[in-house]
This record gives sequence, C-alpha cells and structure tokens, in this order.
Amino acid sequence: MASNFFGQLFRFTTFGESHGPGIGVVIDGCPAGIALTLEDIQTELDKRRPGKNRFTSPRKETDVAEILSGVFEGLTTGAPLTLFIRNVDADSSSYEPLKTLYRPGHANYTYLAKYGHFDYRGGGRSSGRETASRVAAGAVAKKWLAQMGISCTAYISEIGGIAMEEVSEWSQDLREKTVASPIFCPCAQTEEKILAAITQVQEERDSFGGIVTCVAHAPAGLGDPVYGKLEALLASAMLSIPASKGFEIGQGFQAARMRGSEHNDPFDLDAEGRAVPATNQAGGTLGGISTGCPIVFRVAFKPTSSIKRPQATVSLQGERTTFQLQEKSRHDPCLAIRAVPAVEAMAALVLADAVLMQRVVKA
Amino acid sequence: MASNFFGQLFRFTTFGESHGPGIGVVIDGCPAGIALTLEDIQTELDKRRPGKNRFTSPRKETDVAEILSGVFEGLTTGAPLTLFIRNVDADSSSYEPLKTLYRPGHANYTYLAKYGHFDYRGGGRSSGRETASRVAAGAVAKKWLAQMGISCTAYISEIGGIAMEEVSEWSQDLREKTVASPIFCPCAQTEEKILAAITQVQEERDSFGGIVTCVAHAPAGLGDPVYGKLEALLASAMLSIPASKGFEIGQGFQAARMRGSEHNDPFDLDAEGRAVPATNQAGGTLGGISTGCPIVFRVAFKPTSSIKRPQATVSLQGERTTFQLQEKSRHDPCLAIRAVPAVEAMAALVLADAVLMQRVVKA
Amino acid sequence: MASNFFGQLFRFTTFGESHGPGIGVVIDGCPAGIALTLEDIQTELDKRRPGKNRFTSPRKETDVAEILSGVFEGLTTGAPLTLFIRNVDADSSSYEPLKTLYRPGHANYTYLAKYGHFDYRGGGRSSGRETASRVAAGAVAKKWLAQMGISCTAYISEIGGIAMEEVSEWSQDLREKTVASPIFCPCAQTEEKILAAITQVQEERDSFGGIVTCVAHAPAGLGDPVYGKLEALLASAMLSIPASKGFEIGQGFQAARMRGSEHNDPFDLDAEGRAVPATNQAGGTLGGISTGCPIVFRVAFKPTSSIKRPQATVSLQGERTTFQLQEKSRHDPCLAIRAVPAVEAMAALVLADAVLMQRVVKA
Amino acid sequence: MASNFFGQLFRFTTFGESHGPGIGVVIDGCPAGIALTLEDIQTELDKRRPGKNRFTSPRKETDVAEILSGVFEGLTTGAPLTLFIRNVDADSSSYEPLKTLYRPGHANYTYLAKYGHFDYRGGGRSSGRETASRVAAGAVAKKWLAQMGISCTAYISEIGGIAMEEVSEWSQDLREKTVASPIFCPCAQTEEKILAAITQVQEERDSFGGIVTCVAHAPAGLGDPVYGKLEALLASAMLSIPASKGFEIGQGFQAARMRGSEHNDPFDLDAEGRAVPATNQAGGTLGGISTGCPIVFRVAFKPTSSIKRPQATVSLQGERTTFQLQEKSRHDPCLAIRAVPAVEAMAALVLADAVLMQRVVKA
Repeated sequence: MASNFFGQLFRFTTFGESHGPGIGVVIDGCPAGIALTLEDIQTELDKRRPGKNRFTSPRKETDVAEILSGVFEGLTTGAPLTLFIRNVDADSSSYEPLKTLYRPGHANYTYLAKYGHFDYRGGGRSSGRETASRVAAGAVAKKWLAQMGISCTAYISEIGGIAMEEVSEWSQDLREKTVASPIFCPCAQTEEKILAAITQVQEERDSFGGIVTCVAHAPAGLGDPVYGKLEALLASAMLSIPASKGFEIGQGFQAARMRGSEHNDPFDLDAEGRAVPATNQAGGTLGGISTGCPIVFRVAFKPTSSIKRPQATVSLQGERTTFQLQEKSRHDPCLAIRAVPAVEAMAALVLADAVLMQRVVKA
Repeated sequence: MASNFFGQLFRFTTFGESHGPGIGVVIDGCPAGIALTLEDIQTELDKRRPGKNRFTSPRKETDVAEILSGVFEGLTTGAPLTLFIRNVDADSSSYEPLKTLYRPGHANYTYLAKYGHFDYRGGGRSSGRETASRVAAGAVAKKWLAQMGISCTAYISEIGGIAMEEVSEWSQDLREKTVASPIFCPCAQTEEKILAAITQVQEERDSFGGIVTCVAHAPAGLGDPVYGKLEALLASAMLSIPASKGFEIGQGFQAARMRGSEHNDPFDLDAEGRAVPATNQAGGTLGGISTGCPIVFRVAFKPTSSIKRPQATVSLQGERTTFQLQEKSRHDPCLAIRAVPAVEAMAALVLADAVLMQRVVKA
Repeated sequence: MASNFFGQLFRFTTFGESHGPGIGVVIDGCPAGIALTLEDIQTELDKRRPGKNRFTSPRKETDVAEILSGVFEGLTTGAPLTLFIRNVDADSSSYEPLKTLYRPGHANYTYLAKYGHFDYRGGGRSSGRETASRVAAGAVAKKWLAQMGISCTAYISEIGGIAMEEVSEWSQDLREKTVASPIFCPCAQTEEKILAAITQVQEERDSFGGIVTCVAHAPAGLGDPVYGKLEALLASAMLSIPASKGFEIGQGFQAARMRGSEHNDPFDLDAEGRAVPATNQAGGTLGGISTGCPIVFRVAFKPTSSIKRPQATVSLQGERTTFQLQEKSRHDPCLAIRAVPAVEAMAALVLADAVLMQRVVKA
Repeated sequence: MASNFFGQLFRFTTFGESHGPGIGVVIDGCPAGIALTLEDIQTELDKRRPGKNRFTSPRKETDVAEILSGVFEGLTTGAPLTLFIRNVDADSSSYEPLKTLYRPGHANYTYLAKYGHFDYRGGGRSSGRETASRVAAGAVAKKWLAQMGISCTAYISEIGGIAMEEVSEWSQDLREKTVASPIFCPCAQTEEKILAAITQVQEERDSFGGIVTCVAHAPAGLGDPVYGKLEALLASAMLSIPASKGFEIGQGFQAARMRGSEHNDPFDLDAEGRAVPATNQAGGTLGGISTGCPIVFRVAFKPTSSIKRPQATVSLQGERTTFQLQEKSRHDPCLAIRAVPAVEAMAALVLADAVLMQRVVKA
C-alpha cells in the first residue's frame, strides 16, 4: 500500500532501507523560491547522527546528504526536491544469526505476517534509520517556516522516570542549551541525573524509555476541521515514529482528571487589545485549529527493545529458544534521545503542510 | 481544505451542521455485498443518543438515519453509501446571546481566525453532533468486520479520577455490561462511584474529563509502514474526535518509565504450535502492524467546556466581560461518555480500511 | 473503490442512483465566503433537465436541489457543501424485462463482472443522471470563478456529421445564443440542419453521436507539472462523463498531422507590451500550464446506446436472444446534447481546483 | 503542489531534471514478491534511449538505472521501490543563449508565469527526459502484469499524415516487429514511407507530429465508476506525457459520427458459452470498466517544437526578436516516436493500479 508518504500539499515520500544502497526522501509540493543549501540539511542531520556520543548507538554513519533534484541556483524550484543519504557503515553480517528468530519487541514478526518475508538486516523500513529521511525533509520545512517566524523545538523532558519541569514558553537560550546537551535536555540538573542513570542502565545491560516534549510557535488559524485537526495530524505524525507509544497535547491525559472550571482557558486582551487566551491549558489549539498560543505536546517512547540480556523467544522453525544480542552489537540505551530531531522534524512538516492548507480556505 | 474525509480505501466524508437541515456521511469505497439494514445503523446511533439519561445532555434529538444511496435489495452495491440524519430539535435561539462572545474552551475563537466568520449556532462542524455521522459510518464497518471475526469495544475506564482496572481480553459478558451501563462502564462498583461523582459535579455547576479505553480483536498483519502504521491511523482518528487530548497504545506513557527487560513481550508457542507474543505490553502492534493480540488503546477527553459558572472572557468588540450559560442550556457533565460510541466507530473505520489495504500488499 | 470523488482541494464526491431516493454531491474544500443561493444551483440544473424539449429524453424529472449543509446566511462557510436532488419520476418497472439480459452498449455487463451484481433499474451509478450532481457542483464552482473573471462555455459543435465552424474567442452574444438553443448550438444554420437530422434519426429508431466543444477564459499559470497538467485533469474529467470516447485540446488530433513550423505559436507583444502567444494552436496551455489564451478543447460522445431497434444479445442464462426497447421507453436521440452542461460543469470544477492549487506554489 | 505522483495504490512519484544530477522514480505501493532484476528495467529504458538511431535525438545518454531501494534477494519487498538514472551527458551550455527568450511551443513561458522563474537548461520538469522515469516504473508494472497474463503494446500508427491500418488484436509477431522497427512501426511498408518523409522533413529543418496506438489485453472488471473509469485514468495518464494533444478510445472521435445501430457491440457466446461482445467498437470498456476485449486507444502528439528555422518571439526584456536553434542542437524530428515507450509504460502503470483496486471491491 502507498503508505510511505505524509502530508497533503507539502507531501513527502521516504524510501530506502538501513542496509541497502541508502535512504532518502522526495518532497512533492515544496513551494518555489526557498533559499536552501546543503548545509541547511546537514546541520539537522548531524543532530541525530548516531555515534555522536556514548549515549546513542556508536554506529558510525556519516549521514551525508546529496540533493538529487529540485534546487537550482540556491533556490527551490517547486519541482520535487529529493534528498539522498548513502549508507556507508551498513555491516549486516551481525544480523545473520537473527535470520531465524523472532526478536522480542521487533517488527520482524509482523512483517512476516504481512508480507510473507522480512529483511533481517537491521529492520528494513521499520529501522530507526528511516527517521534520517524525515529529519532531512524537516530541515527544508524549518528553513521555510523560519522565514514566517514559525518555529518548533523538541527536547527530552523525562528518561528513566527522571523528569524536568515542563517548559511552555520557549527562548533562544533554552534552544541553545538543548542543542548543546548530549541528550537534548535543556535543564542541566536533569541532564546530569539522566546521564548517571543511563550509565547505570547500560551496565545492567538494559534500556530506558523516555518522553519528548515539543513546543511550536505558530499563528492562529492553522489546522482544519474535521479530520485535519492540527492535533490529529500531529498525533499521526508522532505515532509514525518508531517506538512511540503515546501522544498528548496541552494537559493531555491530565486533562481527563480536571474539571471544566480548571481546564477552560479564559480569554483576555493582550497589550494590543486583541482577544487572546489568558492561559494555555489547551496546548495551543481549540477545535483542532491553532490559537496562536504555543503548541505544546508530548510523545512517549518505549524502552529500546534491543538489550544485551537473554530473552525467551521462538525460532521461525517453531522451537522455543533464547535470544541474546552479541556483545559487539550497537544499540541506543534510550531511543527517545535519537527521536528528538525526528519529533522536531515531523512537527515542522505538519506545520508546513498546515500553512499551505490555510492559503486555500477563503474565497 | 478537503479535510472532512478519512481513510484511503474505505473512505468516508462527513457533512452537516448541528443547526442546519441535518448531518450525514458518504462512504466511498464500501465493498459490495455486505448485508445491511437501517436497523444496523439505528442500533449504533441509539447508543450515542443525547437524552438517553440524565448523565448526557437532555437535548431530544431523535437521530433517525435515512439511507440515501448505496444499498439495493438489502446489500451494499459498492456505490457510495450515504446516510443522512435530519435535525429535528435544533433550536438555535438560545445561542443568540453567544453571537458576540468568545466562549472559553470553544472553537469559535479559532474558526473566526481561520475563516473570518463562525457559525454561532451550536458549534457548526466543531459540534459533538458531527460524531453521529461517524457512528453511522462505523455501524457499516462493524457489520462487515463482524463477518470476519473482527470486533472493537470501547468503554469508560476513568471519570473524575475514578478509574476501573483495565481490561485487556474482552468477553461477551463485558460487552453486554458496557452497553447496559448508562455511562458505558462494565464495572458495577466503578460505575456507582462515577455516577455519584457526576451528580456532585453537576450540583457544583462544573464538569468532568474522562478516559475511554478501546479493545479490538483483529488478525495479525494489519497496518502499513511507515506513515500508515496502525497506531498512527488510530491516533489520528481519535484526536479528530472533539475534546480529545491524548492517545496511547499498550503501556503508552507508562512505557516511557519502563525498562526494555520489562517492556519487551517474549514470544512463545500457542496451543497450535504457532509463535505468538506471550504477553501484550505492546498493545497489539509491533512496527505499526497488528500482532494478532488484542489492540488496546486509551483516549483522554478534556472536561466539558460548557459549564454553568461565570467565566472571564472578551467580546468580539474587544471588551472584557463575563460569560455564563443560561440555566436552561443543555450540556453533558462529561463528554467522554458520549465519546464512547465515537471511539468505537472510528476504531472500526480504521480497521475496515486496514483490512482493504492488506488485500493489496502481495503480488 | 473510492473512485466517486474528483479534485484535490476543491474536492467533490457524488452519490446516489437514478432509481433510489435521489442523487447528490458533497464539496469538501469549497472556500468560505462565496455568496451562494439555491437559485444559482437551480439555473444550472435547469439547463440539463430532461424533457426540456423533444430532443432530449421526455423523462419528467423536476431536479429540484436542496442545500443540506455548508451555507449559512447566504455565504459558503468552508464546511462541506452538500446538495441533494430527490428522485421524483423514478419508475423502474419498465426496466424489469431488462433484468435478465446484457444490453448492448451498456454497463450492466461490466458491473456484473466487477461486483458480481448489477442494479438493473436505469443504470445505477453509470446512469447519465449522475451528471446532475456534477452540474450542481459546477454551479458552485462557476459562481466563484465568475468573481475572478474566469468563465467556461460548452456548446454542440457537431452532431450526425453536421459541424459548425469552431469558435475560439467567446462572446456574451454567443453564450446567450447557446443557452437559448434547444441543442446548445450557437450557430442558427447548423442548429437547423441538426434538428432536421435528429427528427430523421428518431424516425429511423436510431441515434446520433456528437462533439461538444468548450472554451474557457482563465489567467496564465494554472495547471501543475507533471501529472497535474491542466489538459490531463481536463481529459480525466471529460472521459469520466458517460458515453465520452475522446478528448483533444487545441489542434488535438489534427496537430499530429502538422509540422512544427505550422503548429508553433510565435510570441508577440500585446497592447500593454506584455509577451503573449500571437496565435493559439496550442489551445491555451504549454507544458500543462495555462498561457492566458482561451483554453479550447473538444469531447467526443458516442451515439446513444438505447435505440428502438432489435439488437442481438445474450441472456444472463447464456442464451442468444434479441433485445428491443419498449415503444414507451424514453431516451435521448443524442446524448451529446445533454452532456453539454456536464462538460461545462466539469471544466469549471477543474479550474476551481487549479486556482486553489496555484495559491500554494510559491514560498 | 503535490502533482508529481500518479496512481492510488500502485502510486509512483517521479523526480529530477534533465540537467541536474539525474532523474528517478519512487513506487510506493508496489506489491511484495515480484521477481525483479536490473535487466528488466534496463531493457525497457533502452527502448527509449535517445541516439538509438538518427530518427531520434542524437543526445548520448546512457540511461543506466540503479535500484536504490525496495528489492531484496531479487524480490520486491513491498517497501518503496526507487530507481535512479544519473545524467551523464547534460551539457547545458548550449541553452545559455535561450536564457532570455520565450521559446515558441515551449513551457518556459508558462513556468515563469506560474513559479516566477524557470530552469532554462533543457526544460527542467517539462523535458521529455522525465518520461524515462515513467518507463523505468512501467518496467516494474509490466513484469508483474505479465505474471497475470496482462500485456500492453504501443506502436506508431501515423506520422506526417502517413498512417497504417489499425491493429485491434495483437500478436507476438507484431510485437517483435514493433520493437525491431527504428520507429516502433510494425508495418514494413508504412515504416518505409515514414522514414523517407522524416528524412525529407529534417532536410527542410522542420518536424512532424504523430499518433501512437496502444493495445492492451486485460480481464473484464478493471476500472472504477465514476471518476476512476479506466478511460479517464488512461486519458489522464496520456495527456500527462509531454507534447500529447489528444486521446481517444475505441472508435473515439469517429464514434461521434456514427449511429447507435452501427456503434453498439452486440453480445454473443464464445466457444466456452460465455457472453462476450461480438465486436469491439467500444475499445474494451463499457461504463468505464474493462469488458475483456482488447483495450485500444490512440494518443495524438504535436510536432516537435524545436526546429532549426527562425521563429518570431519576444525576449524576457519585452523586445520582439527572432529565435533560431543552433545548428549543433539535438532534437527529435518527431516526438511521437520517443513517446511510444512512455505510452506503453503509462498504460501498464494504469492497469497495475486498476488490478490492485479491483481486489478491494467485494466484501
């Protein structure tokens, strides 16, 4: 099924496997006239680079993007914009022993049910590596959104049960701290505690889950009733990221425990005398359309499935057995860290699409 | 923007306003040959009927569906199937005083930002009434899914902080208890406590949020990589329901606090010697594709915005003022209750689409 | 499959059968703020009304449209706009004898192959009556396009081998003559000859094919590379009209017999000093995008299949037999005449979509 | 706008410019399990290779495809299948003089109107070179269709007014003659006359238009009512090919000059006693759905716009001037010849999509 594309107008299709020639993305519908350089793409890709530090997988991908189409003389042309990242460190030999086993927490079980076969080399399309294509596409969206004063920033708000206080208004200072942090956490104390916990969990040959929070600043009016609600698009985008298990906006699940008199955001006048929500419990949307307040949402990620402990499983031949990763195998202790740039990219891609959609609603 | 449709193959478009001639739905892509009667539709519509009891809004809509097209001699024909529900109790006079105010927690603020106007009569397309169209469409999907042994059941698992223990395997007994409960809650003790709390919150002129859990039984192989992951489609479907603020599958946000060794579902052999997950922390999917285990997800709903307390707001003319609902106005004390049939319907519609998609993946 | 919709942004879905409760259309994506009355719709519907004169089928449908949603206080709201036309003269008893026969030139043969059943009452979704839904939707598009100075006019240019000289620039005078003509032919001499020929062919219990030409005035820049070329969208729209067998733009098939030196339109300066094509052999597009010259295209329609002569056929039981329409049955002597408003409506719908699309191409 | 994709289920997106790094295609929705080699792709690409003989442009592209994703161990995986063709002979220096002129018959005029800029190097996305991506995608479709006994063959039926008799049933012998012919013409006498005429038109520094006929063999039941009629999809596909100006199916425009008694195909019994059309005036469809008879359609192509004669035009600076191609410039004397593999590929891609769609119509 045609299920590898996202977006209606700013529509992108990703392709490629973690152990084939490479991965990439075609953006069909990117507006003409955006100034774009390879460096814009590379800066974003470098954020998610594995091997950046010991808290993400040491796999040494260089992740160098090539622009295959859609840019001429430094500007997007309106034609499909294609970005390609060749695989350079794709040693699939370590996957050989996994050919004949169902891996707990992995998709080879379901791919086999669906397609009658599976690509045992590193997960194929279900690999986290696919998110590099999203980050590359997101870099284009972010470049354009920045021209309009629209931004989105994702950060780690919780790992291993260690949570920082939520940030609802975002500043340049926080953004810089986030990018500088090896785990994308803008709060120094939380970062320190989390790093210690990760060291511990690695020693215990185990892994952590985590929560990524994202704050976007965008004007009122984005998002479409009924099935194109901004939160519906964001939820779909976030649950498409590997290992994500939940999405909430504003007070989210906490809202279910509140009363109307607590949760309702009263309206007030701002300094210019315009009506604005006085608080932002809603998280930036009402009826699926942005209010102009910060759009704040959270995404839950399960712990990394690949751990260096023996796990009960079954072989393809139907025999009970034990599965254990090789010592030399390389895996993130917490996938949520590497998911941060993907969350940010998908948010940007949703917003770029919503901006285009907003252009067509009035006669 | 074309944002009132959902689904790729089993694609439906809803239309209509709460205070216009009526509301309805066109299903374009409904397979030919499904036995379908008006009663199949009506049974589902009756579940969400307002005025069913004092715990939902006393607005007396009869919600009688008419089949406008797509059924001939008791069978679907493959042509667009159109269902229409005429509005019969649409007194919009009580909305007149609201014409000139931003209502806290309502979409008139954002609709005005988006379209330059808003339909002050009961919310227009952002009204909860739109979900009757989904329930009608869902009835068709459920009829077809039942033939294939696929089912989905939603229930209230928490209101006002009062939660029942989660149900992961579903039985006919539980299903009957749910339908019989005035608040769709299969646990008698929880129901009793919630009913008492609702009586209390109504006296306090306030409202509750709540959580709806849904359990679906479907075969392995449904859902598509990458952007058509089953959880991405479900998340999008659920966040499109008015007042929803969060979605989680399996352990959801709790998974973010677990370790890999706890969260991974080991594989085992079932009675027939087939490999199956031994536990279901994942909630029924791996890599976005169903495992054959029950699909378990939860949806958070905010408290009803319409409360009979004075709330600070601003007029369209830009003056600070206070908004208070009229005594005679009719509103649900907890929207989550009325959302139960909508959650169930949307789950069925997502699954019907996924079943059709699964037919085309192999050569 | 979901194949009853057309358009990407100005997207409409038609529904209904010729012998069910009625037919209709939902426009999802109609911009907000278009002034629209029921009369705007009715005026267009009246053009295609059967029984308008003896040159079209005498079936006495009143074709009265009802607006079910999407208009509030005389303006479109941006919500789905639904139009419904109840069937009032749907006597299906005369179709009973056809239940067991394959009808030459009709779709019951292929519907049976596709769906395993067919609606013997008047053609179901393959009926020409479906085009009333398009005409209703087209009326909305035309109302909006007129505000922008965009128009399209279709007329009969040939029937029974009798052709009028092509019109490439369109005038108010020609438009009025076309609407006034019982066969939508603006040339009085051609009309007279065609009317005589039709009288003759009816006496001979036979039918004619014909050609509809359409001229649209629209600005440069509409249409999208590569698969959204304006002529590709128009061709798709026209070949979806029942009984159409061909589409050509500009010189069309004649262009295949020309040389480059004849066919190329040189550029020149207009009175304001702007570069414009000096001639319009291309028919208003280059590379799939409008040039600003009139968009001129032609659509071929086959002769009406339903004729009052005996025709060899086969029964569903697999026996050779003869099929002959009843004397009292009502059919158009030439379907092309009734197709004129459908061609015009579909052209308007394609252009409305292209206008919305054009809004999103630049950064 | 997202307009570079085609198809609903077997959906492909093409990308790339004639003078950028290369061109390619992503097929999203290709079924899993099709045996596919690079040679399958290359064989088709070689058919359209420019410089194959003096009757097509001598530009020496090698057109070597690379599979970037979607194939594993010789089988398609169901993941996006990406094919890429690097440009190796893209000397854009000869286009420099064209930077400042509107070229008669070319799209630079309309691209400028649409996007505010244009890629003067060889036409960008409007270049005929884009069709190599379609041919590559078509090779995948053809490989799969062949397994099901579905085939399509295109050939030159007319150039410069020299036409061969139409072929309605296709044989292996005719197919081989077509592939062997330098102009894809299976009739030796017609080929000889056309080759002589092309020599003549080249000497006269002019060009020819032409007609491509395509015959496909496919089972009954393909194509969807109402807007997904097989002829509507084919018409859209064909009019998206550069330089095409018309499409007709069966008797096409000739049907407009016929009577019902002549045009209707009577039904008869075949050798196995099944009802089948006794003739095939319809060209293989009824009501938009295939009958099982050969699907026969024709596509008109305008003469090559690029001719070595002086042509009146206007500069971007708004001055009247004359445009003349350089002597060394390389252009096809008749674009229809090179369009033959593109017509065949697009027909295969339409049919592959229709086959997938047909799988989902019944309950």
